[in-house]
Amino acid sequence: MSVDLNSDLGESFGRWVLGDDDAMLDLVTSANVACGFHAGDPSTLRRTCAKAATSGVVVGAQVGYRDLAGFGRRFIDVEPGQLADDIVYQIGALDGMCRVSGTAVRYVKPHGALYNAVVHHEAQAEAVVAAVRAYDASLPVLGLPGSALLRAAEAAGLRTVREFFVDRGYTPEATLVPRSQPGALLHDPQEVTARLLRMIESGIVTAVDGSEVRVDAESACVHGDSPGAVAMATAVRAGLDGAGVEVTPFAGERAG
Amino acid sequence: MSVDLNSDLGESFGRWVLGDDDAMLDLVTSANVACGFHAGDPSTLRRTCAKAATSGVVVGAQVGYRDLAGFGRRFIDVEPGQLADDIVYQIGALDGMCRVSGTAVRYVKPHGALYNAVVHHEAQAEAVVAAVRAYDASLPVLGLPGSALLRAAEAAGLRTVREFFVDRGYTPEATLVPRSQPGALLHDPQEVTARLLRMIESGIVTAVDGSEVRVDAESACVHGDSPGAVAMATAVRAGLDGAGVEVTPFAGERAG
Amino acid sequence: MSVDLNSDLGESFGRWVLGDDDAMLDLVTSANVACGFHAGDPSTLRRTCAKAATSGVVVGAQVGYRDLAGFGRRFIDVEPGQLADDIVYQIGALDGMCRVSGTAVRYVKPHGALYNAVVHHEAQAEAVVAAVRAYDASLPVLGLPGSALLRAAEAAGLRTVREFFVDRGYTPEATLVPRSQPGALLHDPQEVTARLLRMIESGIVTAVDGSEVRVDAESACVHGDSPGAVAMATAVRAGLDGAGVEVTPFAGERAG
Amino acid sequence: MSVDLNSDLGESFGRWVLGDDDAMLDLVTSANVACGFHAGDPSTLRRTCAKAATSGVVVGAQVGYRDLAGFGRRFIDVEPGQLADDIVYQIGALDGMCRVSGTAVRYVKPHGALYNAVVHHEAQAEAVVAAVRAYDASLPVLGLPGSALLRAAEAAGLRTVREFFVDRGYTPEATLVPRSQPGALLHDPQEVTARLLRMIESGIVTAVDGSEVRVDAESACVHGDSPGAVAMATAVRAGLDGAGVEVTPFAGERAG
Repeated sequence: MSVDLNSDLGESFGRWVLGDDDAMLDLVTSANVACGFHAGDPSTLRRTCAKAATSGVVVGAQVGYRDLAGFGRRFIDVEPGQLADDIVYQIGALDGMCRVSGTAVRYVKPHGALYNAVVHHEAQAEAVVAAVRAYDASLPVLGLPGSALLRAAEAAGLRTVREFFVDRGYTPEATLVPRSQPGALLHDPQEVTARLLRMIESGIVTAVDGSEVRVDAESACVHGDSPGAVAMATAVRAGLDGAGVEVTPFAGERAG
Repeated sequence: MSVDLNSDLGESFGRWVLGDDDAMLDLVTSANVACGFHAGDPSTLRRTCAKAATSGVVVGAQVGYRDLAGFGRRFIDVEPGQLADDIVYQIGALDGMCRVSGTAVRYVKPHGALYNAVVHHEAQAEAVVAAVRAYDASLPVLGLPGSALLRAAEAAGLRTVREFFVDRGYTPEATLVPRSQPGALLHDPQEVTARLLRMIESGIVTAVDGSEVRVDAESACVHGDSPGAVAMATAVRAGLDGAGVEVTPFAGERAG
Repeated sequence: MSVDLNSDLGESFGRWVLGDDDAMLDLVTSANVACGFHAGDPSTLRRTCAKAATSGVVVGAQVGYRDLAGFGRRFIDVEPGQLADDIVYQIGALDGMCRVSGTAVRYVKPHGALYNAVVHHEAQAEAVVAAVRAYDASLPVLGLPGSALLRAAEAAGLRTVREFFVDRGYTPEATLVPRSQPGALLHDPQEVTARLLRMIESGIVTAVDGSEVRVDAESACVHGDSPGAVAMATAVRAGLDGAGVEVTPFAGERAG
Repeated sequence: MSVDLNSDLGESFGRWVLGDDDAMLDLVTSANVACGFHAGDPSTLRRTCAKAATSGVVVGAQVGYRDLAGFGRRFIDVEPGQLADDIVYQIGALDGMCRVSGTAVRYVKPHGALYNAVVHHEAQAEAVVAAVRAYDASLPVLGLPGSALLRAAEAAGLRTVREFFVDRGYTPEATLVPRSQPGALLHDPQEVTARLLRMIESGIVTAVDGSEVRVDAESACVHGDSPGAVAMATAVRAGLDGAGVEVTPFAGERAG
């Protein structure tokens, strides 16, 4: 039994600090590092990539809309061709920061509103896939099981990796309960850990209505920027280690 | 006898168009492509890199201060470590756009106020050099002969390439006459071409005070964004071709 | 018979020049001046406002999404409260530029994708209205007849002004033919002028399918940033003058 | 005996929170609110202005360089005319947020690198003054005693207000000890309070070398964004109250 633990990191910007990257990099195996469009100044990215490299954590490009003021959390109706170019730019920039830090971008994960958009928005999903494929067709794409993104990635011959959110409630359709609704967030580390262990063993998670849904995820996302983030991630990691689950990155060396 | 012709390109941004990249790419051998910090949105960069690739024009990263509103023409007292990170980010981003366009960044040239700063500003010059060296020590640096930048690049073991501005007046110290002073700009294509041919043959240019200064440049910069830019570049290129000067890029394939 | 002529101005940004504000300010009676979020640096705004003041042209705040890279032409799903704050900020900033130029913001018109969104998007329309009302309830709102924006403005007690686009094709529903479809743009100055004169006399315009639709507009928009913009505006203005139509601003002094 | 207490507030930006504005607004009498160029999104500004209005705290415009990535802490060699326009824009924008919050901008204070620049940089100091004067000549300017800014403001007929930094070390020349040198920052609330009380009584402060320098300040700045900021401000305010010093804003209603 094994799983990857990923977290959104590198999201500080200049004077503004967000999250505790150093602590999280001791707990996760994959770092979704921001690329400067929704968060992340170059010095933050470099520090995060350097620490990831020395900690043996795999770096992925967390690509988003060009929207610092909105932290990439607002849908933008970008024309797909432009979106693809924006994404190539972000992957390249982060790959540069990785290169000088002794590592490389090894997967791609959309951020925030883009992540949510590409669950259903075919044209933007295809734009993300076109960008990844053009940049390096050996890069896996991390996303929601059943999303338009993973379907498009698969159709394009990219490796797809299914993601599970350890502390988010699920609907019977295996999508996330919106943050505005009850059951959206789980706060109890024990419950979170137990649920994750069950998902690893069986691929199944209990939805908010009590029904069981299949997610079969290879990578589990722990949040990095909320007040209790480090404590939750520490508990989850300890739970995995205690249960004998191997916590290991899903992505290896790049072929491209 | 041979020379490289370079020009600043890829400087449009979204709705705002600047210069005629397509026309210039038929005339020059090296394109200093903006990287998004002072100009250049990702789609513009991709189009410019793609056209450069198909035209056999070498792409260089024209790195600048993070200052869209000032077009990178205002000195910013950036801390050298941050400047180096900003430059790695820009090279990486442009390299990404090149990668999906069938080419690669093959040299680095600072833009605008950064270009002027690193003539004398040792710490910023060293930051530029540190960034290039960390990214790929096989990348040449293009700059003003006698500048702190070229000195620092040489000391760091990077290849340096001396640049000549075809339509700018020179001081007796081999620096450019500031744009606010008489003699800063040459407008006559015949005079410009004759001066360039002499520089290629002898390495010498006549300064505004009539004295002769040695510049020994390998690459000549023609402007790409002024109203008469294409006409001037066309005349210069025809003059070189007519005189039997081989116009050829200074940078080859990257080793790194 | 009278009409207002308005145009989008002040849309340059730093090094990037767009349109010929000086020429347009001799032709129109109302200037929709950008506010810095989709276009318009402070120096551009000041020059445009100063020239408007000396030309007797009324200044309106052309408010948009925070999106320089997209020129405000991409829908952004901004939370309404934030959108209202963004709009107050923009009106205030432009009002400051007006204040030092001897004039004041006298109306508000949304730009680009926001203009299109508030035709139907009730929450964003109400956010625009809430911002205008909070800033100065004596400011009229300029928009598309029948739009959610004008309905919300009327309901809030604001003065509404209906707008007609002189060179855009109309659907039978009195909305604009999308730019991607045939008939979206009219290019013949004579046809444009004749259509405008008829609209002024009767309130009626012929739609692309030959049907007649009522628009009853008080203000006619001429484009300021396309290559033939000044020529078209000159022809339209001459046509109005020749037909004895009084071209006069719709907005007077502010009460608030 | 009386003094004004001011603090830099409104410096959050979107997802990134900085400082505890609510707590600080219960302690100070003047709020230097960011204007969006170095920090401060519109919704943050509106919340801060609204809370200031209900708390009876006077709002000043904390104007800075256009540099979110550098938090306005890097000198930018902006052309003075453009700087003046940037400052008018910022004052107007904040005045708009104040207007909808039941208050108004009542003074102007430069931020960060601009604050430091206008201690000596005559042209930028005059640009700040020209902007304030053009916007509203009744607005006081808050700055360092002896600075080019206060000299230029006085020469232009503006009211000038001298500022004292409660927790910064002073040089024998009455300037601040740079943060990189020993003695730059005072950490002991008791020492800070005693020093402030002495300054209020006598106008004198002891410099790092033991010499005594005259500052004669009307307003004392407490920091709002460091970890111990609220605790320090609480101690200082209690010390002033306990000593019977009246803590009261220096700026009244605007005449302009």
